[in-house]
Amino acid sequence: MAETCQLDAAFEATSVALGSLGLCEARLQNDARYPWVVLIPRSPGAREIEDIHPLNRQLLADEIVLAGTAVRAVGEALGLLVEKLNVGALGNVTPQLHVHVVGRRVGDQAWPRPVWGQGEVEPVSPDQLSAATAAAKKALGL
Amino acid sequence: MAETCQLDAAFEATSVALGSLGLCEARLQNDARYPWVVLIPRSPGAREIEDIHPLNRQLLADEIVLAGTAVRAVGEALGLLVEKLNVGALGNVTPQLHVHVVGRRVGDQAWPRPVWGQGEVEPVSPDQLSAATAAAKKALGL
Repeated sequence: MAETCQLDAAFEATSVALGSLGLCEARLQNDARYPWVVLIPRSPGAREIEDIHPLNRQLLADEIVLAGTAVRAVGEALGLLVEKLNVGALGNVTPQLHVHVVGRRVGDQAWPRPVWGQGEVEPVSPDQLSAATAAAKKALGL
Repeated sequence: MAETCQLDAAFEATSVALGSLGLCEARLQNDARYPWVVLIPRSPGAREIEDIHPLNRQLLADEIVLAGTAVRAVGEALGLLVEKLNVGALGNVTPQLHVHVVGRRVGDQAWPRPVWGQGEVEPVSPDQLSAATAAAKKALGL
């Protein structure tokens, strides 16, 4: 059995669970400005990509690509057509290893700058959150 | 033989060549504020990670980890000890697929925000660029 891997409380505060992929927990960021999925590898103590087992790196890359399809699907559900994906593993604020997959479009609030630390989060309405979650889960096969 | 894959001129203007890895061209970003390596997959026309061949995704992940060791070595050469790696594939400004691997430390100019689009680039002095390039190449096995 794998060691227990707990989620940092910051993820609970800013996103909703989509489900478990082969390596990562997938979550939908609750921000109406961007279609946005966060992947959190179930690798206890990992802070950097180098901390996950080398055999899991392919899986991480595959799940990043899969999350991109989910982000596009969320974009369709929210009426925010995705023109570019932004993938980032930063962790300067929340140290537990996580990868952001964010859907961008020309003219979005932060364009062309990164989304992190720009402006204020706008929570998604309950109806839209339900639609976005369903679209993301379908794309992820969850 | 692979199709020709030309580098976007933006990379030539902001970074120096380190050499060719299995999948990517590796370059050292010429910015004295951060130890910083850029990986550009030799995948003609690729804009997103999903555009590289699925069999090359493992290689991309491996080269990102390897670039992290190079960034730490550059940090030692420049006296900028790396406390956190930031990995990002954005491409909002330069569309050719590329992955940034940036060494961060608490209190650096942009901390804890992302480095992209923050402040003005400070070119590395010729001596330090030579030392940083040598350190990066050694770490990359080039």
